[in-house]
Amino acid sequence: MKSLSAAAIAEMVNGKILGDENKVCTGVASVRDANSDTISFVGSKKYQHQLESTTAGIVLINKDLEKEPLNGRTFIVCDNVDLAFAQVLEFFAPEPIVYAPGIHPAASVDPSAKIGKDVHIGACAVVDRDAEIGDNTVILPGAYIGVGAKVGKACYIAPNAVVMFRCTLGDKVVVHPGVVIGGDGFGFIPGPQGLVKVPQTGIVEIGSDVEIGANTTIDRARFGKTRIKDNVKIDNQVMIAHNVEIGESSILVAQCGIAGSAQIGRGVILAAKVGINGHISIGDGVQVAGTSGVVKSVPAGSIVMGTPAEGQRDFMARLMLPKKVEKLQAKIEALTAEIEKLKAGN
Amino acid sequence: MKSLSAAAIAEMVNGKILGDENKVCTGVASVRDANSDTISFVGSKKYQHQLESTTAGIVLINKDLEKEPLNGRTFIVCDNVDLAFAQVLEFFAPEPIVYAPGIHPAASVDPSAKIGKDVHIGACAVVDRDAEIGDNTVILPGAYIGVGAKVGKACYIAPNAVVMFRCTLGDKVVVHPGVVIGGDGFGFIPGPQGLVKVPQTGIVEIGSDVEIGANTTIDRARFGKTRIKDNVKIDNQVMIAHNVEIGESSILVAQCGIAGSAQIGRGVILAAKVGINGHISIGDGVQVAGTSGVVKSVPAGSIVMGTPAEGQRDFMARLMLPKKVEKLQAKIEALTAEIEKLKAGN
Amino acid sequence: MKSLSAAAIAEMVNGKILGDENKVCTGVASVRDANSDTISFVGSKKYQHQLESTTAGIVLINKDLEKEPLNGRTFIVCDNVDLAFAQVLEFFAPEPIVYAPGIHPAASVDPSAKIGKDVHIGACAVVDRDAEIGDNTVILPGAYIGVGAKVGKACYIAPNAVVMFRCTLGDKVVVHPGVVIGGDGFGFIPGPQGLVKVPQTGIVEIGSDVEIGANTTIDRARFGKTRIKDNVKIDNQVMIAHNVEIGESSILVAQCGIAGSAQIGRGVILAAKVGINGHISIGDGVQVAGTSGVVKSVPAGSIVMGTPAEGQRDFMARLMLPKKVEKLQAKIEALTAEIEKLKAGN
Repeated sequence: MKSLSAAAIAEMVNGKILGDENKVCTGVASVRDANSDTISFVGSKKYQHQLESTTAGIVLINKDLEKEPLNGRTFIVCDNVDLAFAQVLEFFAPEPIVYAPGIHPAASVDPSAKIGKDVHIGACAVVDRDAEIGDNTVILPGAYIGVGAKVGKACYIAPNAVVMFRCTLGDKVVVHPGVVIGGDGFGFIPGPQGLVKVPQTGIVEIGSDVEIGANTTIDRARFGKTRIKDNVKIDNQVMIAHNVEIGESSILVAQCGIAGSAQIGRGVILAAKVGINGHISIGDGVQVAGTSGVVKSVPAGSIVMGTPAEGQRDFMARLMLPKKVEKLQAKIEALTAEIEKLKAGN
Repeated sequence: MKSLSAAAIAEMVNGKILGDENKVCTGVASVRDANSDTISFVGSKKYQHQLESTTAGIVLINKDLEKEPLNGRTFIVCDNVDLAFAQVLEFFAPEPIVYAPGIHPAASVDPSAKIGKDVHIGACAVVDRDAEIGDNTVILPGAYIGVGAKVGKACYIAPNAVVMFRCTLGDKVVVHPGVVIGGDGFGFIPGPQGLVKVPQTGIVEIGSDVEIGANTTIDRARFGKTRIKDNVKIDNQVMIAHNVEIGESSILVAQCGIAGSAQIGRGVILAAKVGINGHISIGDGVQVAGTSGVVKSVPAGSIVMGTPAEGQRDFMARLMLPKKVEKLQAKIEALTAEIEKLKAGN
Repeated sequence: MKSLSAAAIAEMVNGKILGDENKVCTGVASVRDANSDTISFVGSKKYQHQLESTTAGIVLINKDLEKEPLNGRTFIVCDNVDLAFAQVLEFFAPEPIVYAPGIHPAASVDPSAKIGKDVHIGACAVVDRDAEIGDNTVILPGAYIGVGAKVGKACYIAPNAVVMFRCTLGDKVVVHPGVVIGGDGFGFIPGPQGLVKVPQTGIVEIGSDVEIGANTTIDRARFGKTRIKDNVKIDNQVMIAHNVEIGESSILVAQCGIAGSAQIGRGVILAAKVGINGHISIGDGVQVAGTSGVVKSVPAGSIVMGTPAEGQRDFMARLMLPKKVEKLQAKIEALTAEIEKLKAGN
C-alpha cells in the first residue's frame, strides 16, 4: 500500500508543516469522508469550519488559513492548495488504465484509412475510409471516425464517441463517451412546400489540447468551419451550433448552449446551463454566471448574469426589488397618514 | 385478442363499478384517443371535463370523482387510479421483448471478464478486461462495459450505453441508451502554461434498483466516489458532476444538472431543467420546481423555486410585483392629487 | 476548381447585378472570413455595417439593402438572400459523401429482419430481429435498430443512433448521431416499498421528412404512441417525454424539453432551451422565446416568453420594472418634500 509522511508531502508540494512531520497517511479523502489515515484539504475560509470537525490525519490548507487551531492534527500550509492536493492525489491514484497499441480484431478499419504509429483501436470501433489517425492515439470500443476525418496525435477518443466526415482534431484532444462532432447544423428555410433544409457543407475544426465532455455535441458549419481553438475545455452535454467559434482556453461548463455563428473570445468562462444567442460576440475573459441567457454581445472582461443577462449591479438591483417595493409601500402609507393629518388640521 | 369485462377489471383493481358490469373492452387508450372498445382513466378533478367528452367504453376514476354523471358509460371507482390503470395496462401490454441468455457471436467479451449465469450480451456490445457481469443481466448491442467495471445481477444495459472503467452498479439497475457512467469529472486549474487538468481518479458507484434515462451522464469522482444510492430514478439528459451524492429514492427529472460535490438527500424531487450549485446540500424530501437554479443549501422538507431559488411565498411575491407596483403607482397619483388640493386650500 | 461569375450567379438565383458582371469567384465564406475570391451574403439591415467592411468579391444582398454604396465590389440583389445563398453554397459544396448500397461484413443483421432494396448498413451497425428497413435507407456504423422496429424509405440513421423496439419511422427521416428514439418514458408511482415503475408499453411513431439532431431523446409512450408528425425539425439535445405529440412542421431548437403528454401544434417554434410543462397544449403557430418555461396552455398564434411564460407586453413590463420603481421612488421623495413644506406652512 502506498503511504506518505507529512514531511514527504511538504517536500512534494513545497509546503510548511504545522504539527507532526512524521505523521503517515495511506490515502486521500474529502474532509467529510476522511479518517486518521487519510489526507484531505481545505481550500478557503468558506470551508474553515470543516477544519474544526474533520478527522483527517493530515490536512492541506491554504496559507490564509495558517493561523487556525490545530486540534492535535497535522496541517500543511500551501501556496495553492488545489495544485498541491492534485499532486498528492496523483501519488495515490490507482494505476491508470493502459490501452496498448494495436488494433482489436473486432475493430473495423477501412483499408484506405491512414493509421499512425502505436495507435490503439478497440473492439467494434470503426474508422471509415480515408480517415487519418495520428501516432499514439487511442480509439476506444464503439467509437466512430468518419470518412476523411483527421484525428491528431496522442488523442483519446472514448467509447461510442462520433467524429463525422471531414472533421479535424488537433493533438492531445480528449473526447469523452457519446460526444458527437460534426452532426449537421440546424438550418431550415420556410419554402412553398414546407421547411427546406439548408445544406450543411462545412466541418468542425478542433484545435489541440481540447477536452470535450460526455454527450456534448458540436455541429458542422453551414459552410466553412465551426472552430474550437486550442486548450478549450468543454464539459458534458454542451451544445455548440454551426459556425460558432470558441477562442483559446475558454471554459464551457455543463449544459451550456451556444447558438449559430456566435463568437466566443479567449479565456471566457460560461458557467453551467448558460445560453448564448446566435450571431453575437462574447469578448475575451468574459464570465457568465450559471443559467444566464445572453442575448446581446458582451464586451471583453465583463461579468454578466441573469436572463436577459446584465451586469452584477443591475442584476442585484432586480433581485432586491421586492424589498425595495416593500419599503416604498411603507413610505406611501406614512405619507398617506401625514396627508390625513394635514387634512384634519385644515 | 385480449379482453376484459368491467367486472374483471373491478376485481383486478379492487374497484367499484358504476354502470354495466358486463361491458367488455379490448384495449387501453388515453381519454383523448379512446373509443367504445377501450379503457381509459381520469385521475383528478382537473381533468373531469374529459369525463364528459370521452368516448371510452370504460373509465377508471378516482373516488373523489365518484358523483360525476355517467352519460351511459361504465366507470370504475378506484382508490388509486394511477396504480389501478397500471395494472390494466400491464394486462393489455404487448408481449415484453425477451433477450435470451447467451453471448452473440458479434459481441466482444474479453477473456478475463467474469460473466455470470444466464447473461445476455448483444451484437457489438463490448465487455472489456477484468469486467464483471452479474447473473441474469442483459447487455444490449453496442453497449460498453469498461476495464474492471462491475455490473450487478438482473441489470439492463441498453444499446450504446457506456460504463467506464472501475465503476460499479448494484442489482436491477436499468441503464437506458446513450447513458455515460464514469466519464471524467470536469476539473482544470489555471497554471502558468494554461489550464491544467485535475486527474479524475475516482469512480461512480450506483446502488440497486436505480434507473438512468437516455443520454444522462454521471461523471467519475475526482477521487473517491460519485454516489447514486438505491432506488434513485433519473430521467433523460440529466448531468451529474463529480463527487455528487444522491440519497435513496430521489427523483431527478429530465435535463437537470447537479454541479460538483453537491449532496442531494433522500426522497428529493428535482423537476425538469433544475440546476444545483456545487458544494451545497439539498435536504431530505426537498422539492425543487422546474427550471429553478438553486445556489445555496436547502433545509430538509422545503419547497423552492425560481432562480436564484426561494420559497413559494417569496417567489409568488416576486411574480406579482408588476401588479403591486401598478397599485402603488395609482396610490401615488392619488396622493399627488390630495396634496395639490391641500396646496390649493392653503 | 469550381468557379462562378457574377452573371452566372445572377442567373442561378434570379438576382440583379450591381457592379461587374464578369467578376469571378471560386468559393464561399462568411462576410467575416471572406476575401476577393469568395462570395458572401448580407441578409438584413442589422448586418449592413458588414457590407462596408467585408472584403468579399461578390456579396448577395437582400433587396431592402439595394441602395447601399458599392465601394467597388459587386453586389447581387436577391428576393430571398437565404435561399439564393443556399443555391450558391450547393454549387460550391464538397462532393457529398456517398454510402453505397450493401451490408458491411462487420454489420450484424438478424436473419429475421426485412431489408429493402439498395440499403446501406455500416460496420458494427445492428439490425435486431423482425426489424424492417425501407429501400434506399442508410444505416451508419454503430447504429442500432431494435426488435420489430420499422424504418421507412430513404432514411439516414447516423452512427451510434438508437431506435428501440417496435418504434416506427416514416420516409426520408434524418436521425443524427447519438439520438435515442424509444427509451422508456419516466414514470414512477410511490408505493408501499418505494417507487414503483409504471410500465412504458407504447412506442414512438415518427412521420416522414422529420430531422432529429444529435443526442436528442424521444421517449416511448406509457401506452399508445409518442407522435412526431411529418416535417418536424428537431435540433440537438432536445428531450421529448412520453405521450407527447408534435404537430406538422414544428421546429424545436436545441436543448428544449417537453414534458409528458404535452400537445404541440403545427408550425410551432420553440427556441433554444425552452421547457414545456406536461399535459398542456401549445396552439398552432405559437412561438416561444429561448429559455422560456411554459407552465400553462398557450392559444394558437401567440408569442410568449419568460418563466413562467407570458406575452411580450407583460414580459417587457416586468423587465423594465426596476426603472419604473426608481421613478416611483423619486416621485415619493418629491411628495415627501411637498408635505414637509405644507406642514411647515401650517
